Formats: sequence, structure tokens, C-alpha cells
Amino acid sequence: MANNPLVSDRNVEFLLYEVFDAEGLCRLDAYQDHSRETFDLVLQNARKFAREVLLPTYKPVDEAPAHRVGDGIQVHPAMRAIYPKLVEQGMTAATRPASVGGQQLPHTVATLCNLYGMAANLSAVSYLGLTTGAAHLIEAFGSEALKAELMTRMYSGQWTGTMALTEPQAGSSLTDVKTSATPTAQGHYRIRGNKVFISGGDQDLTENIVHLTLARIDGAPLGIKGVSLFAVPKKRLENGKLVANDVHCAGAFHKMGWRGIPSIALNLGENGDCHGWLVGEPHRGISQMFQMMNEARLMVGMQAIATASVAYFESLEYARTRPQGRPLTSKNPASPQVPIIEHADVRRMLLRQKAIVEGALALGVQTARYADLAAHGPTPEQRRRALLLLDMMTPIVKSFSAEKGFESNALAVQIHGGYGYTSEYLPEAWLRDQKLNSIHEGTTCMHSMDLLGRKVLADEGAALRLLGEEIGAAIGRAAAAGVDPEWCAALERAVARTGEVTMRLASVGMSGRIDEMMLHSVDYLDLFSTVVVAWQWLLQAAVANEGLAKAPNALSSDFYQGKVCAAQYWIKTELPRIEHLASLCSGGEASYARMNQAWF
Amino acid sequence: MANNPLVSDRNVEFLLYEVFDAEGLCRLDAYQDHSRETFDLVLQNARKFAREVLLPTYKPVDEAPAHRVGDGIQVHPAMRAIYPKLVEQGMTAATRPASVGGQQLPHTVATLCNLYGMAANLSAVSYLGLTTGAAHLIEAFGSEALKAELMTRMYSGQWTGTMALTEPQAGSSLTDVKTSATPTAQGHYRIRGNKVFISGGDQDLTENIVHLTLARIDGAPLGIKGVSLFAVPKKRLENGKLVANDVHCAGAFHKMGWRGIPSIALNLGENGDCHGWLVGEPHRGISQMFQMMNEARLMVGMQAIATASVAYFESLEYARTRPQGRPLTSKNPASPQVPIIEHADVRRMLLRQKAIVEGALALGVQTARYADLAAHGPTPEQRRRALLLLDMMTPIVKSFSAEKGFESNALAVQIHGGYGYTSEYLPEAWLRDQKLNSIHEGTTCMHSMDLLGRKVLADEGAALRLLGEEIGAAIGRAAAAGVDPEWCAALERAVARTGEVTMRLASVGMSGRIDEMMLHSVDYLDLFSTVVVAWQWLLQAAVANEGLAKAPNALSSDFYQGKVCAAQYWIKTELPRIEHLASLCSGGEASYARMNQAWF
Repeated sequence: MANNPLVSDRNVEFLLYEVFDAEGLCRLDAYQDHSRETFDLVLQNARKFAREVLLPTYKPVDEAPAHRVGDGIQVHPAMRAIYPKLVEQGMTAATRPASVGGQQLPHTVATLCNLYGMAANLSAVSYLGLTTGAAHLIEAFGSEALKAELMTRMYSGQWTGTMALTEPQAGSSLTDVKTSATPTAQGHYRIRGNKVFISGGDQDLTENIVHLTLARIDGAPLGIKGVSLFAVPKKRLENGKLVANDVHCAGAFHKMGWRGIPSIALNLGENGDCHGWLVGEPHRGISQMFQMMNEARLMVGMQAIATASVAYFESLEYARTRPQGRPLTSKNPASPQVPIIEHADVRRMLLRQKAIVEGALALGVQTARYADLAAHGPTPEQRRRALLLLDMMTPIVKSFSAEKGFESNALAVQIHGGYGYTSEYLPEAWLRDQKLNSIHEGTTCMHSMDLLGRKVLADEGAALRLLGEEIGAAIGRAAAAGVDPEWCAALERAVARTGEVTMRLASVGMSGRIDEMMLHSVDYLDLFSTVVVAWQWLLQAAVANEGLAKAPNALSSDFYQGKVCAAQYWIKTELPRIEHLASLCSGGEASYARMNQAWF
Repeated sequence: MANNPLVSDRNVEFLLYEVFDAEGLCRLDAYQDHSRETFDLVLQNARKFAREVLLPTYKPVDEAPAHRVGDGIQVHPAMRAIYPKLVEQGMTAATRPASVGGQQLPHTVATLCNLYGMAANLSAVSYLGLTTGAAHLIEAFGSEALKAELMTRMYSGQWTGTMALTEPQAGSSLTDVKTSATPTAQGHYRIRGNKVFISGGDQDLTENIVHLTLARIDGAPLGIKGVSLFAVPKKRLENGKLVANDVHCAGAFHKMGWRGIPSIALNLGENGDCHGWLVGEPHRGISQMFQMMNEARLMVGMQAIATASVAYFESLEYARTRPQGRPLTSKNPASPQVPIIEHADVRRMLLRQKAIVEGALALGVQTARYADLAAHGPTPEQRRRALLLLDMMTPIVKSFSAEKGFESNALAVQIHGGYGYTSEYLPEAWLRDQKLNSIHEGTTCMHSMDLLGRKVLADEGAALRLLGEEIGAAIGRAAAAGVDPEWCAALERAVARTGEVTMRLASVGMSGRIDEMMLHSVDYLDLFSTVVVAWQWLLQAAVANEGLAKAPNALSSDFYQGKVCAAQYWIKTELPRIEHLASLCSGGEASYARMNQAWF
């Protein structure tokens, strides 16, 4: 663990400066004060802090989770010790404009800075990740008074923020939110309700917490269109003093991972004295909250990548140093045992981890770049294009990273053998952490329906056409760089097949057979993700070939060779799976549609 | 949890009496004292004990693992309370002959009895499972003195047994066992060495533990052919009294699951006073130990099935009772929420679990039947055939159940949503338990090499031919029962494809390119397992169709319909995956073969 890099610095450099032209972003007005030098400076700070401060706290925090003491949650002492330093890093408002105290750092760069912290101690950075999203909601939709009173204290890390959506009867189904908000003459609302699974919902790190809360104003319409957004602080300011706001921790869940940040049940207004302030328009709570949900989904995707990354490096180090067994053709028991990385199947597992981690990461950075262009692209048309792509990639970054990340984390345990099953080593903890990512911020199934039912068809299919253009450009770059033409052709065929399947499903949906259209949505997500990650691998292979053409020495050549080999792995062993998935999606296989409840 | 059946009684009845003709076994001499009545009696005891006694102890034991206190291991008080009752069940020697105190119960039946206990509390039943295997080694290879002194006390549950193979430098590589055995004039050997990962290696349940230990007699040849087998008790009998035998618990591993049974490091003979008694022939330790390893592999496979089964039923119950969301086509937020089982993707996850659990279980019972016929079949030829099939199925029952079981257990967590991630519900604990099964008793990779490198080619391909006959018979039964001819044809094609791939790989191996032959052994295992489980599903569909033809009422019809639907799922959505796996195995895709260590 001591030498675990968390994330490969060389790969970060590769993605930023060789693949995605991060320097080019500095030509945009919003980022004109930045340069490769400022990017490298924040990256250097982030990785140093993650390795030296955050990582050593991970295991102690996992072993003694945040828990309830009296009325509130006590976090691990190590977490209290590092929190002020974490705030000092200044990442909370890093991507926000200077006008609200931010650094106007591109998401493309900030995402990678945060990745180191996530890989080192995912819980620790989550407090501030949630705070950023919550403050950004107030920045986007809140009154000037709320901005002055809440947002600035949140962006500075003085207070934290949460998202308070889920209720016992309303998990995936936000339509069913029941928490009520009663208007008062003083401008605030009286809030009453019960929330569950509120990450960071209580803690003893900061004096106050602001819950961005979904609730229904009395008399609001039923359903999604009657839900409003409120800022509900744990303590409210009255005459310059913080007083209790009738927000109570009703208990902490005992989670299998993410042990440094509590997930709690919150009771709001059990004494009738919980004040909430409307954020934005009445009844627009869900659509406003989508800003934070989308940010949180990308954050979960990056957490999944980070958790898979740190485990990948741990298993790589183990495989290089653990002697066990001999080559298959060696019959001599007197010969020394070889490091297990020399066994083909161990290399298979490592290469699979690398392909998942670095494939997902490339897609994550690609998506962060779309976020930057969606906000700050030079023309409205370029912003619109980037937004469509950002929206389409969000469910994939979230769910692909969570699902394949879990598989990757399981491989890290497997490579460690019996030791991997023990808490004397860390892979089992990271495996436990990873399992949450396919559940929170929307289950994999929900994201598959978001992708198929909304995103790929958005703007009359414009998003899908744009993706085709993006992939076409990558194929062109790969062909020019001398990547195996068969790989380019395989991706082209896969894109065409994806298009066919999508059109077929769209026509089924258009004819009103929604259940039939959505039946294999999870298979569709798998198919689509596999193709999109193949795109990212072909792109990386192209850039690696460009690099190899001018590689000054063997060391830099090694890195590029690894990229080409991982691209081969993904395109030759993973991409062909889509044929079967495409058949399932469009062939009408209906065993579980017809499976009667009573037959189980 | 209260209503969790652990295993479906109806399915057990179906497998025993409709699919595998357990009553027919009573025509064999060894089982002539048995009948359906005696089978049902032991089954009824086993399920009642599992549900009423074992299951309630599972969660407390998971929460407070067996741990070291002073020089030894203290197990959970609940475990101490149930141990005598567990022994009373009489399963330790159930399959052994009456001559050694057994019941001569067929494995076909005993396997299913044990399955209930495994599903209820896997750790509890492991103490006795290991004891059976250890005592059986003494029964098969030990002297009369060892049988009298050790075996009888083990089969009676008075003492327990372990397998002490692994050492810090010798995990998968038993060639590298270093523990030494020095002959003495008194007939015993002086043992010295260090063992790790010894399940049940210490406990405070019984007064003594017998470790079946691999060690090298001084001067023995290097490698696998210099390893011998010893019985090394924790305490030895001297003048009718138990005295310490210089066997020390050096520490317990902290495991992510299987918390009721400790896995420990053992120091043998650190004071030069550890006596061990040779079991069987010198230098034949590994081949003898294979008897216990093979039994343990099947046991691990059944543990994996049991752990997936209990989680399947838990998620089924949750899905039937948890209201959340509405049908995709419902736009009315005032309508009540529906149980999540009504969502297609939840049914997909449940049907996948059912297909894995019941597919693997059918294969497990089929394999137990081969074990019975291998030991007690009427003719030498029938015993030989059964043994070949038993040997070939062993790595599949072990590894398929472990790998797909883990996936199935993850689905149970997913179905529970956020609650599934908490220890307020049990699926996360079963997921943790399951992860061990792909590691202990041989990793998945080792089993894939065993299958491809030894089992399918055994006896000049006789095993594979026999399997073809067995599958052919099932296809015939399915055709006669009116199963969809396309399913029969799909399995026939899959068997032919498997044969082609096997022949191609065998010819590669025969030409000396062993690394190339073995490169995709894990993909080959996946392919082979998928086909073999499809065979079991087609067989079950055949029997279900026979049942439907005479089903007296809707209730019994439900059960059979579920079988047919799960068979459809496996054959239509899982079996087609083999085409891609076959291409990988025989197409020479070599990304991880060529992936240089330095490129990672």
C-alpha cells in the first residue's frame, strides 16, 4: 500500500495533454487565466495530499465507521483531523467562477485532481463533493440572500451540504416524496418529513450542514410536478447566532463500505419548528435538483473509477512481488518460484483491470471536457452539442464504471488469493466500497432507461449523430496513426450495429410498446457502454501510436505499448460481446417478461 | 429473513425424485437399507434444524467473528451452543459405511441435506464438513491404530478435523511445501513447520482437533513427489490422557466473510515436540490428499450454491413485498406503487439468480449421483464411467458456482437497493461470504487448467464422450417431452462447438504449445460450464414438461412453468455467449500473452 500511486500520473498527463488537449481549453474566455502550469500545480498538490494525508487515514476510518453518539454522528478522529486540511486544498469551489470565490478550473482538470483523493479516501472527499453540488444549486437557483448566507459558507468549506431526496417510501421513485412545506408569513416554509440514506447527513466536522431538500408545498399537485426544492439547514441563523432548526438524526445505517461518511435517517420538523427556504421556483424542485443529481452521477462514476484504480495498482504491485508457482512448462521443483505476474491468467486479470480503469477514466475525462464546453464553449451551437454529449455520457460514466468497476475490484481480491479475502490487505475493503456505486444516485436499471428512453433519442437523435461524428473522428485519427485497420473496422461495425438496434427500439417505442422497448434496457446499456469504451480505447491507441513514433526511449515506449495492448484487449475480447447483446435487445427474447410472479 | 426457506423443498423433491431417480439408488447393494421414506426423514430433519436452529445464529456470528484469545481461538457463544446439536444431527459420517458408524446415505441425498445447513450458517456446518473429509482420509489410508484412535472420534464429532496444506510460500503451489517430518524410533514423526489459512485450525468447541497435514520426510525428493500426509493432533493421547502436542495458533486472519469459522496460522513443533503419524504411503501425500481436496471442492461448490440460494430467496421475498414505482406506462401519481417484482428488470435479476442457483444445484446433484455410482455402481465399467464424469464435473461445480454465485449474490444486494448495502439486511453478508469460494480449494484459474489440461482429455477423451452421451440422453428426453426443438438444437450445436474447441486445443497441447493451449483456460471453463448448465436446464425443462402433462392443479403447474421459463432464460440468453468464448479459445487472441510486465 505504501507505494500505491492511486492513479497513474503518466496516464493523467497522457489524457490531459496528449489525448484531450487540456491546454486548448485555456483559449476559452472562462479559462484564459489558466495554463498547463496552473493545471500541473493543482494536480501536484492534489496527488501529494492524497498520497501523504488521505491514504493513511483510509484503513483506520474503514475499521471504525462514523456512528451515532447521543443525538448526532461522530466521525472518526482521523477524519476530524484532516478535514481542515482538505478544505485548505480549495477544491470545493475549484470549478466555480471567481465571482463566487472559485478558481474557474476546467472540470477536465478538476475531475482528475479529485480522482486522487477519491482513490485515497473516498469518504473524506465526499463531504466536499456533496457540498459543492449543494452550493451550486443555491448558486444557480437561490436568492441573493441565500447565496450570501449559505452558499459562500459552503463553498468555503465552513459548512457542508447534502442532498436530501430519498424517503422510506420514495427511493428510486421521487414522484412519491411526501415531506411537506407549509408557507409562513416570514418568507420561510415549515418543513416536516422523514429522509433516509442522507450521506453526510450529520457529522461533527463543521458547525452547520445545509440539506438541499425535496418537499411538497401544501396543496401542490401530486407527482413529480409538485415537488419543490428547499434549503434546510441543521442550524439556522437568528440575530447572527446559529440556533437548532428541528433537524434530527434518527439513526445511522450500517454500511458495508464508505465507512468514513455516515448515511443517516433524518427527521425534519418533528417539533414543528424546522425552517426551510425555497430554492428557485415552486414545483420545479426535481428539474432543478437534476443539476446536482447529474453532477453527483458523474461524481459516483469517478468514485467508481478511483476505487477500481487504487485496487488495480495494489494488485499489480502484489503480482510483481509475490512468488508462487512456476511456468507451465517448468518441471523442476528446485527452480525458484516466479512472481505471479508471469502467469498468463494473472496478466489477464491485470489487463482486464487496466482496460476497465483506464477505459472508463478516458471516458470520464472526455465527459468532463464536454461539461466544460457545454458551459463555456465559444458558440451557442458548440455549447448545445457538448451538452447533448454530456447528457448522453452521464449514465454511462456512472453505471459502466460502477458495474465493471465492481468486477475489476473483485479481480484485485482474486489476484491476492487468500490474503485478498482478509482485512490484512485492502482489496476487500475497496470491493465493499465499490458495491454502492451501482445503487446510489440511481440504480443501473434507472440509468439504462435514462439512456435508452431519453438520452440517445434526445433532440430527434441529434445526440446519437454527434456521437457518431466524435467516434468517426477518433477512427480517422487512429487510421492516420497506423492503428490496426481491423480495430478501426470493428469499431465502425459496432457503431453501425448500435445504430440499428437503437432505431429498432425507437420504432418499437414510437408504436407505443414501451415495455417491449425497455425490456432489455440493461443489456442495451451494456452494449452501448462497451462500444463507447472501445471508442476511448481506439482513441488512446491512436495517441499511443503517435507517441511511439516519436518516443525518445524505451521507458516512454513501455507506456504507449501498454495502451496499445489494452486497446487490443478491449476491442478483441470485449467488443465482440455486443453481437449477443444486440440480438437480445432487438430479438425479443422474453423469458423474464413472461415469468409470472408465482412461478419463482 | 424469518420466512426464508433457504432452499426450495419443492425443488429438492423435484431433483431427487423426478429428475435423478434417487429411489433407484436403493437398488444398489450399498443403499438397499434406504428408501424414499428414510431419505425424506433425514431431509426433513436437516431442513427443520437449519431453519430453526442454524439460521438464527447466522447474523450474530457474522457480527462477532471467532477470534484469538490468549493462545487459542474463541468461537462465538452461539456456535458453542449449537455445536452439540449439530453433531447430534449425525451428518458427519452420513455417507460413510455402517462399518465405521455411518448411515450409508447416498451423496445424492446427503448433499441436499447439507445444503440447508450451508444456506443457514455456512461456517457452522464447515467444522463438520472438514471433519468428514479428514476422517475419510484416515479411513481410506490410515492404519488400524489411527482409525481406532482418531477416525472414530472424528466421525462422532467428538473431535474435529482440518486440512493443513497451505504455507506462507506455498499457496496454490503445493510443490513448495516445506514443513518437515523427522522419523523417530517410536513410530511417529517429529513435525516442524508453519501452515496458514487453516479453516477451523483452532476452536473451543471440542477438546481436540486433528490436522491432516502435508509435510516432507527428511531426505524426501524435491517437488510434489516428496510430500507425505500426516495426522497431527492438537493434543496427543499418552497413557489415555490428552497432552499438548506443540501445535500453536499463531494468529487468526480477519476475513471479510465466513466469520463463524476461524482461518488461522498454525505453528507446528516450535518446541521440537510435535508428533505426527504418517497416513498411507510415504511421498504419496498429494495424491492421497486429493481425495479430501476433491470432496472439499464439491463442498465449496455446494457452499457457493447455498449462499446464492439463501440470498435469492431473500431478494425474492423483498421484491414481492417492497412497493416502489409504477409500471412504465402509468402516468398517474395517485395510483399506488407496485411491488418491485412487477418491474421487468427486477424479474430479470430474479430469474438470473434462479437460473444460476437451480442450474448449479441440478449439476451438483447430478455430480453427487456420479459420486454414488463411482463408489457403488453395479459393475466396474459403470463405476469407471461414473468416476470419469465425477472428476470432470468437480472443477465445474466448484468454480461455476463460485463465480456465478458471486454475481447472483451481488444481484440480491442490488434488488434490495440502498437497504441491500446495509447490515440491517443480510444480502451484503452473503455477498462477503461468497467471495471466498473462487479462491479457497483452488482458484478458478487452477480449476480451469484442471478441466482443460486433465479432465476433458482423461482416458483418451473418454470423459468427454461420456458427457456427450449423457447430454444426448437429456436431449432425447426433452424432445420426447415436447420441449421446444430449437432449445434442443441449440444445445446440440453448443456441444458440437465445445468438442471442436476442445479438439483444437488438445492438438495445440499435443504439439507442445502448452502455454498457447492454456492461454484462455478460464474462458474455456466459462464456455464448458455454460454448456453443462444448459444441459441441466434442458433436462429440467424436459421433466417439467412431463410434470405439466399430468399436473393436477395450477399450483403444481406454477412450479413447472417456472422451470421451463428459467430453462428458456439460460438457453436463449446465456448459452449464445459461448460463440464468443469459443472464438477466444481457438482464435489465438493474445493481448495478455504479449502484455509485457513493464507495460502495465
